[in-house]
Amino acid sequence: MKVSIFRKEHFNAAHRLHNPQWTDEMNTKVFGKCNNPNFHGHNYELVVRVTGEVNADTGYVIDTKILSDLIKEQVLDRFDHRNLNLEVEYFKQLNPTAENIAITIWQLLRPHLNQNLDLKIFLYETERNFVEFPA
Amino acid sequence: MKVSIFRKEHFNAAHRLHNPQWTDEMNTKVFGKCNNPNFHGHNYELVVRVTGEVNADTGYVIDTKILSDLIKEQVLDRFDHRNLNLEVEYFKQLNPTAENIAITIWQLLRPHLNQNLDLKIFLYETERNFVEFPA
Amino acid sequence: MKVSIFRKEHFNAAHRLHNPQWTDEMNTKVFGKCNNPNFHGHNYELVVRVTGEVNADTGYVIDTKILSDLIKEQVLDRFDHRNLNLEVEYFKQLNPTAENIAITIWQLLRPHLNQNLDLKIFLYETERNFVEFPA
Amino acid sequence: MKVSIFRKEHFNAAHRLHNPQWTDEMNTKVFGKCNNPNFHGHNYELVVRVTGEVNADTGYVIDTKILSDLIKEQVLDRFDHRNLNLEVEYFKQLNPTAENIAITIWQLLRPHLNQNLDLKIFLYETERNFVEFPA
Amino acid sequence: MKVSIFRKEHFNAAHRLHNPQWTDEMNTKVFGKCNNPNFHGHNYELVVRVTGEVNADTGYVIDTKILSDLIKEQVLDRFDHRNLNLEVEYFKQLNPTAENIAITIWQLLRPHLNQNLDLKIFLYETERNFVEFPA
Amino acid sequence: MKVSIFRKEHFNAAHRLHNPQWTDEMNTKVFGKCNNPNFHGHNYELVVRVTGEVNADTGYVIDTKILSDLIKEQVLDRFDHRNLNLEVEYFKQLNPTAENIAITIWQLLRPHLNQNLDLKIFLYETERNFVEFPA
Repeated sequence: MKVSIFRKEHFNAAHRLHNPQWTDEMNTKVFGKCNNPNFHGHNYELVVRVTGEVNADTGYVIDTKILSDLIKEQVLDRFDHRNLNLEVEYFKQLNPTAENIAITIWQLLRPHLNQNLDLKIFLYETERNFVEFPA
Repeated sequence: MKVSIFRKEHFNAAHRLHNPQWTDEMNTKVFGKCNNPNFHGHNYELVVRVTGEVNADTGYVIDTKILSDLIKEQVLDRFDHRNLNLEVEYFKQLNPTAENIAITIWQLLRPHLNQNLDLKIFLYETERNFVEFPA
Repeated sequence: MKVSIFRKEHFNAAHRLHNPQWTDEMNTKVFGKCNNPNFHGHNYELVVRVTGEVNADTGYVIDTKILSDLIKEQVLDRFDHRNLNLEVEYFKQLNPTAENIAITIWQLLRPHLNQNLDLKIFLYETERNFVEFPA
Repeated sequence: MKVSIFRKEHFNAAHRLHNPQWTDEMNTKVFGKCNNPNFHGHNYELVVRVTGEVNADTGYVIDTKILSDLIKEQVLDRFDHRNLNLEVEYFKQLNPTAENIAITIWQLLRPHLNQNLDLKIFLYETERNFVEFPA
Repeated sequence: MKVSIFRKEHFNAAHRLHNPQWTDEMNTKVFGKCNNPNFHGHNYELVVRVTGEVNADTGYVIDTKILSDLIKEQVLDRFDHRNLNLEVEYFKQLNPTAENIAITIWQLLRPHLNQNLDLKIFLYETERNFVEFPA
Repeated sequence: MKVSIFRKEHFNAAHRLHNPQWTDEMNTKVFGKCNNPNFHGHNYELVVRVTGEVNADTGYVIDTKILSDLIKEQVLDRFDHRNLNLEVEYFKQLNPTAENIAITIWQLLRPHLNQNLDLKIFLYETERNFVEFPA
C-alpha cells in the first residue's frame, strides 16, 4: 500500500549559467542570454515527492508539516532570495542549471528522510521549463 | 502502444483528521488544527489515470465521457458536499487523510474498469499538498 | 501616481449555507447540497487589493510583508481550519456565502489600513465561483 | 545521474472525431458532439519530456532552446492553427483523438533525438482531459 | 453593499477570422494564420460577472446555479463544440474575434438578468489573449 | 462599444530593492532579504490591457500580434534576462519594486499607442504579489 505524497514550495533566486573552464565566447554561444554576467532570476517552484507505506495510526506517509519544515531548513533557507552562483556553496563549482539544482536539492534532503522512503524532486524554473530527478 | 489518459474532476468536502484510539491530547499533537472537532474543508481536485492499449476503431483507451460518468457515480455522488467523517461510510473507521482518500477512491473505481486497464489516482487536497496511489 | 497592489493568501474552512429563519424545506430548496447540516468545505483563495500613492522613499504602496501579516492576524487566524458557522462569530447570525465572507473580510481589514488607501477584496470559493467587494 | 527535462509548448487547432469506416449513426453514437462535421477546436498544451544523463560541461540533459526549436519545426509548424483532419497528413487516415495525436507527436520527434535519450509526450486537450505516451 | 460575483464556464469551438468584404490577400495580410479557410480552434474560458446588492435572506447577489444554468442555455448550448462561423448565426455576418464573441455573449445574457444587476464578460481565447466587455 | 483586450507576456530578471540614500541598516530593516546586495530574481508575468472601440472591419481593438511585438520591442528586449538595477537605465535611480516597474512599463508603452486607446499594466512579481497601474 505505497502512496506518494507531494509538497510544493517555492523560492526566488538570481543565477547565471556559466562554465568557468570555457572562454567567454563559448559560454555566450552555449548559454546565450542565460550567461549574462550580471545575472537574471526566477521564481522556482519546487515539488518534493516522498513515497512509502501509509502509517496505520496516522494515515500519513509522512506528515506534510514535517516535510515542509525539512524543505525550509535544508533548501529554502539556503536558496531563497539568494544569488545561487555567489552565495550558495554547492553552485560555486557547479553550473546552476535546473538539472543541477534538482540533483543538489535531492542530495540535501535525502539524508534526512527514513531509508524506506523514496525521494523525487520536481523543479520548475519557469512554467514552461522544468525537471525531474531522479528520472 | 499503451497510452495513459487522465480525467480531472473535483469535489468539495468537510473533514477532520482524528484517530479515535488516541487521547484528544495525542490527536491535537499529531494533527494540529486539522483535528478541529468542528471540521474544516477542502476543494479536492481528483485526477484519475487509466492506462491501456488504444482501440484501433475509436482511437480511445477509454471514452472520457464513460470515465467521467463512472467517477461521478462512484466518487462524486458519495463525497461531494459531504462531511467525509460523518457521512461517507469508508471514513467512519478510516482517518480521511489525502493518502486514505486516494486509496479509497482507487478501491471504488477499480472493480468497474476492465482488467487490462491500469488505474492510478492523484488527489490534490490543496495546490501544495497532493498524493498519488499506487506509488 | 496611484498603484494597486494585490496580495494572495488562502485558508481552508468548513461551512454550510443556511437561513435559520426559514424552514428546512425552504433551506434545502434554495441552498441545495450547500445546506448539508454536516457541513462541506473549501480551499478559499483570498486576494486583497490595496490602492494608493507610491511612497517615493520605498517604492511601495504598502509593504506586502505588512499587508500579509495583517491578513494573517485579522483573517487567517480567525478563519483557517475553522468551521465558519460554528466557530467564527461573524457568521453566527450571517449566512457564510462568498458574498458575506468577502464583506466581512473587508470590515475586518478596513480599520487597520490608512484612510488614504483604498481596499478591495476578491474571494475565490472555488476556481469557478468567486466574488469582489466592493463592486 | 539521469534527469528528465520537460518543455511545454502549445498549439491551437480544429478537429473532429470520426471513423470513416462507420456509419454516421455509429459515429454520432460513439463520438457525440466531437463528431460535428463542421469541426470544433482546442488550445492544445504539449509537454515533451526528455530523459538522459546530465552533460558535465553544460549541466544540461538537452538545451531547452534546441528542444523547443525541434518541437516548433516538427510539430507546431505542422499543427498550429490548422485543421488536423483536413490539413495534417497523419490524420487523414487516423482519428485525431488525444491518444493518437500524442503517439504521432512522439513519432515525429523520436528520430531527431539522440538514441540514449528517452522521450515521453504529455498532451492536454483541455485542462480536464489529457494523455501520456508512452504509458 | 454591492458585490460582484463571477462564474467561470468554458466551451470548445472552431473558428476563422475573415472579412468577406475583403480580398483573400487582404484577409491573409491582416489575419495571418487565423484566416485559415479550414478553421482552427480554441478552448474558450468564459467568466461572467454579475454585480448587485446582496439579498439579505439568501446572502446571494444571484444564485450561481441559476447563473450557470443561464450561461449553459444561452451560450454553451449554442457555442460549445461548434464551428462559430458556420453554425452560430451571430457570426455569419460578424467576424468571430474574441472582442465580437464577448459582445455577443453579453447581448445574449443581458435580457435574462434583472435590470438592477450589472453584467460584464471576460473571455479567454488562450491563456495569453483575453478580452473584457464592457470596458 | 468599448472592449478591453489583454496580452500576457513574461520576462525573467534579477533585482534587489535598495534606496541609495539610506544606510545599509535602514535598507535591511525596510527591504529585508529583498535588499540582498547579490540580487535575487523573478519570473515576471506581465499583462497589458488596451481599451478602445472595436474596429468594424477587423473586429479588433488592436491586433494582438502588433501589441505583442510592441511589448517585446519596448519591454522584453530591455528587461528579459537582465539585472534590473545594473542594466536597465530606468532603475539606476529608481527602486525596482513591482510598483515602479509597472509604472515604467506604462511609460515605455504609452507613447506607442494611439491616443484614443487606454492602457493599463498588471505585473505579477510572484503568483501571490502583483500590481496594477494606473489604479
